[in-house]
Amino acid sequence: MAKYVIGIDLGGTETKIAIVEEDGRIIEKKMIPTRVFDGRITVVTRIGEAIKELLLESAVSSSKILGIGVGSPGSIDHDTGTVLFSPNLPDWSGFGLASMLEKITGVQTFVENDANSFILGEWAFGEFKGSQHMIGLTLGTGVGGGVITHGILMTGSSGYGGELGHTIVEPEGPLCGCGSHGCLESLASATAIVKMAREYSKRFPKSSMFSAPEITAKVVFDSARGGDLAATMIVERVTKAMAIAIGNFIHVFNPEHIIIGGGISKAGDLLIDGILRKMPAFVMPSFIGTYSITLSRLVENAGITGAASIVFYRLS
Amino acid sequence: MAKYVIGIDLGGTETKIAIVEEDGRIIEKKMIPTRVFDGRITVVTRIGEAIKELLLESAVSSSKILGIGVGSPGSIDHDTGTVLFSPNLPDWSGFGLASMLEKITGVQTFVENDANSFILGEWAFGEFKGSQHMIGLTLGTGVGGGVITHGILMTGSSGYGGELGHTIVEPEGPLCGCGSHGCLESLASATAIVKMAREYSKRFPKSSMFSAPEITAKVVFDSARGGDLAATMIVERVTKAMAIAIGNFIHVFNPEHIIIGGGISKAGDLLIDGILRKMPAFVMPSFIGTYSITLSRLVENAGITGAASIVFYRLS
Repeated sequence: MAKYVIGIDLGGTETKIAIVEEDGRIIEKKMIPTRVFDGRITVVTRIGEAIKELLLESAVSSSKILGIGVGSPGSIDHDTGTVLFSPNLPDWSGFGLASMLEKITGVQTFVENDANSFILGEWAFGEFKGSQHMIGLTLGTGVGGGVITHGILMTGSSGYGGELGHTIVEPEGPLCGCGSHGCLESLASATAIVKMAREYSKRFPKSSMFSAPEITAKVVFDSARGGDLAATMIVERVTKAMAIAIGNFIHVFNPEHIIIGGGISKAGDLLIDGILRKMPAFVMPSFIGTYSITLSRLVENAGITGAASIVFYRLS
Repeated sequence: MAKYVIGIDLGGTETKIAIVEEDGRIIEKKMIPTRVFDGRITVVTRIGEAIKELLLESAVSSSKILGIGVGSPGSIDHDTGTVLFSPNLPDWSGFGLASMLEKITGVQTFVENDANSFILGEWAFGEFKGSQHMIGLTLGTGVGGGVITHGILMTGSSGYGGELGHTIVEPEGPLCGCGSHGCLESLASATAIVKMAREYSKRFPKSSMFSAPEITAKVVFDSARGGDLAATMIVERVTKAMAIAIGNFIHVFNPEHIIIGGGISKAGDLLIDGILRKMPAFVMPSFIGTYSITLSRLVENAGITGAASIVFYRLS
């Protein structure tokens, strides 16, 4: 008998909800606005309603649902499913999200940080599913990290572990929102890329980046692909920062697979080739051949399948 | 009934062997020259003889010995107890050390990398024994690392994990023997410290460091303690590199304790205060209060008690 779970990709702006089969197939999907300003009780009640509708529409009996998995931004106490702190969900600090959703739906619920649920999604459904040693990096507005080592989702002593985006790769580098200089997020996030492009506007006023109506990370990568010098310099700096950080994670974790996801991973070969070309300078010879670095193939639905995988991981 | 193990601290020059009780107490201890040039069979046979003598001298019956633990330099396949590669033990690559020692002594034997056995020693007998989230850094000729996360000794997919000394903290920093620039070992090992001092000889010819018969890491720290400018600049650079690296490990692992050992840890307050003072610049506010950074209290016997702890860990 097929097993199903509910995956919820909770975002600051919109929330995606889906019924996911154990092979990662999406049976039914729904997207609702999060509308954080309505207050957490209203938001979660609305999510509960959406789940009921999904079950009705899909004709999957709620008795066949193993559990609900929620991928949430911020720091999560994943033992209790409580949101500890989330910049995108103000006033949710200390909110017992899992127990509230359980009360509304009657289904056991697990909550994880969204970067952790990304790597769990890879572990459950990705190209290298089942690997016991994997590292995930999500490049978006920020840079998230998730680590599976010896088959365990590494969260550390108080659940804050895996903050790979805030490891320092350039001690005299740009100031990050975290308060440090030159951490990976300050060099490889969409925010950082746009900032670097703006700083080039005086030096390279004719760069093709500045003919776009708005500078985005996509504009920078597209310009670099077109041979633009300033954009190429930015891509070189981003991929060097990634190579240094990934080299460090390889020495630390000796993983089998490093998987890159998030919006910026859509830059594709320009991103991955730039990283791969630089790796030998940052990895000891004894590690060569022990790891792969690839882009996630789950991009479009990574959020909901990752959230769904939390349930499979917790019940495994 | 008291339980005993044999701990062997295998060094390039000398080998320390001891009978250790489960509380970490050393019952009987012996030191023999390793004499690697005699060949691995002769070396291991000599160790076997020394173990027999120790048992006779201590009147501990060999039936009370739970196992033998060997802390060895280099890369170890700890499932089989095989030395994969060790710069200090040439020609030992691929040597089945554990099975050879088992054959000679009739006692089950476990082998671990010496930096891993350092953190296992802390886990078994140290100030924070039993902690499930600890990081060890050994500052000596090189910089070794050992990680216990979620109660597991983290060794990674092929046993190479925990190479914390080869993570990069200064991408344009000094060249390391590993081939990279600015990894922790190139800035905080005894070798690196002596090299930095030598480079200062022209700029600061009157530095008190150069009145010592030989420049060692100890001379540098002693000079800094005496107020010498050049030596103080070196200590500042060393402790900054340590603070950046430890900050990175805190974000990655969210450990409870970071413990520093090895010869350089004898620099004491000068080392630890320098690191602690710099930490706030390299750690996100949310991590403050989640970790301690201390010097190992096991220094003198850390090698043999660490080796002994391998047995307790493997049988736990």
